[in-house]
Amino acid sequence: MNESGLLIVLSGPSGVGKGTVRKAIFSQPDLDFEYSISMTTRSPREGEVDGVDYFFKSREKFESLIEQGKLLEYAEFVGNYYGTPVDYVRETLDNGKDVFLEIEVEGAKQVREKFPDGLFIFLAPPSLSELKNRIVTRGTESEEVINNRLNVAKEEIDMMHLYDYVVENDQVEHACEKIKAIVVAEHCRRERVEPRYKRILEVE
Amino acid sequence: MNESGLLIVLSGPSGVGKGTVRKAIFSQPDLDFEYSISMTTRSPREGEVDGVDYFFKSREKFESLIEQGKLLEYAEFVGNYYGTPVDYVRETLDNGKDVFLEIEVEGAKQVREKFPDGLFIFLAPPSLSELKNRIVTRGTESEEVINNRLNVAKEEIDMMHLYDYVVENDQVEHACEKIKAIVVAEHCRRERVEPRYKRILEVE
Repeated sequence: MNESGLLIVLSGPSGVGKGTVRKAIFSQPDLDFEYSISMTTRSPREGEVDGVDYFFKSREKFESLIEQGKLLEYAEFVGNYYGTPVDYVRETLDNGKDVFLEIEVEGAKQVREKFPDGLFIFLAPPSLSELKNRIVTRGTESEEVINNRLNVAKEEIDMMHLYDYVVENDQVEHACEKIKAIVVAEHCRRERVEPRYKRILEVE
Repeated sequence: MNESGLLIVLSGPSGVGKGTVRKAIFSQPDLDFEYSISMTTRSPREGEVDGVDYFFKSREKFESLIEQGKLLEYAEFVGNYYGTPVDYVRETLDNGKDVFLEIEVEGAKQVREKFPDGLFIFLAPPSLSELKNRIVTRGTESEEVINNRLNVAKEEIDMMHLYDYVVENDQVEHACEKIKAIVVAEHCRRERVEPRYKRILEVE
């Protein structure tokens, strides 16, 4: 009878500040969604706590979880695995609570395949919209620098394709407010709300 | 070169409190959208100002504007016309500003046909979700009362069909916050943002 929660996926190019935005969101009170802690094989950095910052696992354990299908998504970076344990996500959604993932673009692609109805938010670097100014003032920069930036920008814009929303990370607080607004709005979407009303009538 | 503004339409069953919610929204500072003042043939009530609350017009003038296609939508209630002047809406949108309409369900249908990409928000009466409790405790009410409520509720739920979002008017402040969140979110939708980035690249 419980209505399923919403799977919220925050992703974007590396270096865009996903972690900072996610931490800022979860530092706020009265938040209505749960953070899904990632799993990794890398060693804890100073101050990091197992089960808070990450679930720290051995390489063997991680690979056995992959084999058992216990990861919603995973990827390898610089010799270490990072992934999202699937059980926590499914249980939380089944309990009607929203779950928030902050993951890499590659992982978001994997999640989209399994949860096409999830809410996918692309965090875009402000450099993308600054690009125009940079191109206009090209006299001050070498052709090579400009071309490199253009290529990076093209790749980043191509990444957006799989997402429902794009939020520019111009300021962390702005990005947080927009992400929270998107979650509120998504809960008001007619496709989500109408069936709830129809169920009320069918109770008769 | 200007990006078109967003047409925001707030509607819902009569008596749901559309006017109250709209006034509460527009009493807030730093609002990023313009209110489109309606036109009517009814007489001003005490305190109402022409060009603020409504544009007050004679029946002859109103009918001639209808004939000239100058109304985005209109309807007749209790012998008076109410409608939305189309020029203000188009000019404001063309200037890249969002326009907010608060209109009847019948008018919203007409606007949807002309602006399929508008943002249509249905304000739902809280009585709809209270209905379940009322049905469960039906022992205290007559069959007829319950059936009447059910029929009204069915009509109201049928109206939702053409809308993008449903906001329950449980408390005016809640409804305002949700509507503002929906507008923020809509501006972040990938379909709106992606072409803007692509245009930046094509400037090259």
